[in-house]
Amino acid sequence: MEVDLESLVALNLTGLVGAALHRRLCERFGSARSALRAPRSELKRVPGIGDLTSSAIVEQSRSGAAAIEIEEAASEGVSILAYGTPGYPASLSTLHDPPLVLYVRGALEERDLLGVALVGSRQATPYGLRQAARFGGELAGVGVTVVSGLARGIDTEAHRGALGTPEGRTLAVLGSGVAAVYPPENRGLARRLAERGALVSEFPLRAAPSPGNFPRRNRIISGLSLGILVIEAGEKSGALITADWAMEQGREVFALPGSVESPMSRGTHLLIRQGAKLAETAADVLEELPALASILRGVSSPAAVSPLERTVLRELGGKARTAESVAAASRLPEVTVSAALDRLAARGLVVCEGPLFRAVPLA
Amino acid sequence: MEVDLESLVALNLTGLVGAALHRRLCERFGSARSALRAPRSELKRVPGIGDLTSSAIVEQSRSGAAAIEIEEAASEGVSILAYGTPGYPASLSTLHDPPLVLYVRGALEERDLLGVALVGSRQATPYGLRQAARFGGELAGVGVTVVSGLARGIDTEAHRGALGTPEGRTLAVLGSGVAAVYPPENRGLARRLAERGALVSEFPLRAAPSPGNFPRRNRIISGLSLGILVIEAGEKSGALITADWAMEQGREVFALPGSVESPMSRGTHLLIRQGAKLAETAADVLEELPALASILRGVSSPAAVSPLERTVLRELGGKARTAESVAAASRLPEVTVSAALDRLAARGLVVCEGPLFRAVPLA
Repeated sequence: MEVDLESLVALNLTGLVGAALHRRLCERFGSARSALRAPRSELKRVPGIGDLTSSAIVEQSRSGAAAIEIEEAASEGVSILAYGTPGYPASLSTLHDPPLVLYVRGALEERDLLGVALVGSRQATPYGLRQAARFGGELAGVGVTVVSGLARGIDTEAHRGALGTPEGRTLAVLGSGVAAVYPPENRGLARRLAERGALVSEFPLRAAPSPGNFPRRNRIISGLSLGILVIEAGEKSGALITADWAMEQGREVFALPGSVESPMSRGTHLLIRQGAKLAETAADVLEELPALASILRGVSSPAAVSPLERTVLRELGGKARTAESVAAASRLPEVTVSAALDRLAARGLVVCEGPLFRAVPLA
Repeated sequence: MEVDLESLVALNLTGLVGAALHRRLCERFGSARSALRAPRSELKRVPGIGDLTSSAIVEQSRSGAAAIEIEEAASEGVSILAYGTPGYPASLSTLHDPPLVLYVRGALEERDLLGVALVGSRQATPYGLRQAARFGGELAGVGVTVVSGLARGIDTEAHRGALGTPEGRTLAVLGSGVAAVYPPENRGLARRLAERGALVSEFPLRAAPSPGNFPRRNRIISGLSLGILVIEAGEKSGALITADWAMEQGREVFALPGSVESPMSRGTHLLIRQGAKLAETAADVLEELPALASILRGVSSPAAVSPLERTVLRELGGKARTAESVAAASRLPEVTVSAALDRLAARGLVVCEGPLFRAVPLA
């Protein structure tokens, strides 16, 4: 079956045809293109297609809107990836309900398949915001693509944390079109993000962020990721929906603990009680994901660590030590040692405990 | 085999004979009393008994110190429970290494077998102290005996929380003699505690709190409890030793989550990763302990809840509501509803979420 971008865009523009209906249409009519030429009466013979959907398909076909959408996307520099074509992310192809098309501003690279999602509440606490930025930085710093949803709160800080590292990559999966970034205050962040990752959406180029879009959007966040870490979530947070998607998709679920006095940690504690893994550091996440544990080993192999950093790591040994004591023992200037420790910390190879640094044991 | 208190006290006073050696002595000599009359050369034939222990046994026997110890305990109002007698706690009898004797100031009652231990670091944070007091109050409020170690920090607040409820019971297991309470600032607390529970120790009446005593003491804390909840613990806290004892003894282990920015929650997060159950409320603990879950059901049965409280619980339903809204809906004075909610909260039947109250779902 040849994939025809314009037909998939047209079916997607109806907002009523997902992968399951698309498959049935192809089975009945041979291709999406033939289905779009079929009369309403024929369309309605397909199980699951009634008055509403059949009208929408016929209307789309007549309107020619798909061709205009494709042209506009091209003029905006937005790619459209079609389900069933080589550029379409393998991690989404295997979902139960993959998006028919994926609008991408920026670029999805091979290495973005090693993604970890950071998600959480819009009503985050200062603790949650700090931790989102920290995990975003730590994960991106070791070469993991940070996936999130560009929402206010946790998502924003997770993207920012990733962009704060020298070559950190991050993907934002939107509940609106990639040319209708929401919330408005994140438009600058979205622009920077598209240069170091991508804005991704299954919704039409200029689709508004309708509330109904977000739960569906969440399945793409988890779908693009090997695992998801919930930073903060109230008892009814949308982040818990993403965790449900992740479990259904066989992705690993992690949760950050917090104060039991904070309602924003209720959801993460619930997840831990249900079997999610408690994560305190990026290393806790990487160790549990086979594909990423090998990255972690790769990054921390002698080749990837500078001679200076190697000296500092050797000096640390298994103990927690201050930069000052490492400097004294290694006869290096303290400022040099501090800088090396900070670089190692940014890559998750050492952790700071107050004034002390400790090497992260490798998986 | 008849149990002879004076002989057990004598063997215990040596500080070198535990349950295993006691058993071997009885096997060889017929009774502890006969062992105490045996010559050194005979004692040394028992595997595990060398110069030091045999000398100590002979010396104890000659000194007559045990009779004096028993007399002093009696004059102080301290009971001594001997291993193998009916008054000795059943929960300790089944341990691998039960104390030979147990000094008790106050009283161990039948219901104290439904104990839950609250343990944690001496260097606790304000968060840990608040939570220790809260769990102490919530557990004691539903009739659970709170077991802890009278140490500074978490232990102190756990006992205080239990004593703060109208009939709350609490046991303090000491690392010193019950007539040598440590730390000194807790002597007043110890006095109040002995009236509503007991001070318990296997160490001689006036034994000083030697550091080596505390790890051994911890096995009695977990041994007297159905489960233990670690409130806060650094990575090398003694509370983790208690958790190890608890796991070895088949007790349920619970841990309170906290901020990943707090070193005092590292130990509890480690426990959760190793399989301890995450506990946010007293109900989380009770639900997992069959013997206590039935208490919880008993307390929350219609008979144990007053008609007013029943009205308030019914009004709450499955939702989180303010006292004001429950008052409005039930046409009761707000002050009456608030007081009922507080009483229900103290018994773990509702939880407060800021200004909101929510009924605790029953196991």
